[in-house]
Amino acid sequence: MSGNAPDASWPVAVVLVSGGLDSATCLAIARSEGFRCYALSFAYGQRHAAELRAAESVARTLGAAQHRVMNIDLAAFGGSALTDPRIDVPEQASGGIPVTYVPARNTVFLSLALAWAEVLGARDIFIGVNAVDYSGYPDCRPEFIAAFEQLANLATRAGVEGAERIRIRTPLIELSKAAIIRRGTALGVDYGATISCYKADATGRACGRCDSCRLRRDGFAAAQLPDPTHYQ
Amino acid sequence: MSGNAPDASWPVAVVLVSGGLDSATCLAIARSEGFRCYALSFAYGQRHAAELRAAESVARTLGAAQHRVMNIDLAAFGGSALTDPRIDVPEQASGGIPVTYVPARNTVFLSLALAWAEVLGARDIFIGVNAVDYSGYPDCRPEFIAAFEQLANLATRAGVEGAERIRIRTPLIELSKAAIIRRGTALGVDYGATISCYKADATGRACGRCDSCRLRRDGFAAAQLPDPTHYQ
Repeated sequence: MSGNAPDASWPVAVVLVSGGLDSATCLAIARSEGFRCYALSFAYGQRHAAELRAAESVARTLGAAQHRVMNIDLAAFGGSALTDPRIDVPEQASGGIPVTYVPARNTVFLSLALAWAEVLGARDIFIGVNAVDYSGYPDCRPEFIAAFEQLANLATRAGVEGAERIRIRTPLIELSKAAIIRRGTALGVDYGATISCYKADATGRACGRCDSCRLRRDGFAAAQLPDPTHYQ
Repeated sequence: MSGNAPDASWPVAVVLVSGGLDSATCLAIARSEGFRCYALSFAYGQRHAAELRAAESVARTLGAAQHRVMNIDLAAFGGSALTDPRIDVPEQASGGIPVTYVPARNTVFLSLALAWAEVLGARDIFIGVNAVDYSGYPDCRPEFIAAFEQLANLATRAGVEGAERIRIRTPLIELSKAAIIRRGTALGVDYGATISCYKADATGRACGRCDSCRLRRDGFAAAQLPDPTHYQ
């Protein structure tokens, strides 16, 4: 499927693509369901531009109709190890919500996806959140997604004009990391082109030690598939 | 009250400030309730920078502790007369949702306010939406605000760690334009420094003819107060 040009008659979806493993799988699933996919990424002050290059590569190779990178300066607010160079990214999970949590990130990302969806006439917004290996982030939970979907249908023309409901699609939400990797592999995702590491170097090579690297490596092991990650 | 330096011991609020009449009143109300106000404005591709200068002036004269302008390129998505120069701003309301509606704008703005609130430890977010003179925008309705508040409490640390609830404060939501103007005047708002016009010129002077100008002018007339608007 990957690489096939989407047909203009297909329904349109907005897909959030970060450059990581989960969102790449999510895009492949959206394409496999017959959507013309508009991939949306954010430059939000994350430490490395490597993941945006990965997002671009993922969107292109998985046949997105368009890929857009929006700038949002979440780093200006501070408060996260992912955007604030003064906060160290830990190698061990500490319990509770980790310092890598970016305040309200998925709310902001879904809001902007909703804005684009409304302009495109898309009824489906895909996001690769996961409630199994979710690292304790509040905005990866099913109840958060349900609340956002309800909001989306009140926030837009659909809510007033009674158009078809907007759906927040979370095909990975109940899957283990291993199941995600098996699913994406079956759909032709090149995971070597994705970056999960919180501390990737400028060329995109992973540290192999942070929370995100550990979840990913354990996932390949559990899926009994070779790990194509480029480590430092 | 205006001009008094906020006390560091006061509770913190994030206040969305656009440079218009409603949000200026909202900021004055938040200050009058004893909040240290962090004013947030957006450069989102709106046609005129004059309203951002007005927002800066409003935040300063009404004693905000800080004023921040975030860039978000909503114009990149298109779909609104307020951000797309190819769509004319009409002088007559057409019924239904007007072309000046910016897709998902208040959802995006509240999401970013929520991000800042979470970093600041603010539990109150003020937005000057109004359900009376709301021009048919879906994201100005009380049910939208209620849905966002529910989302906010699931999206953030508060939702997981059981902190005090986040409240989306809409002190203007049931007020007529005249009542808003009377309230703000009593609190010392200088409405001559605010801009409501969709077609303001580069110096901030209003057209006097667009939907927004008409609502504002009628509001001063109904309030029986002099209209300090600078017209072209």
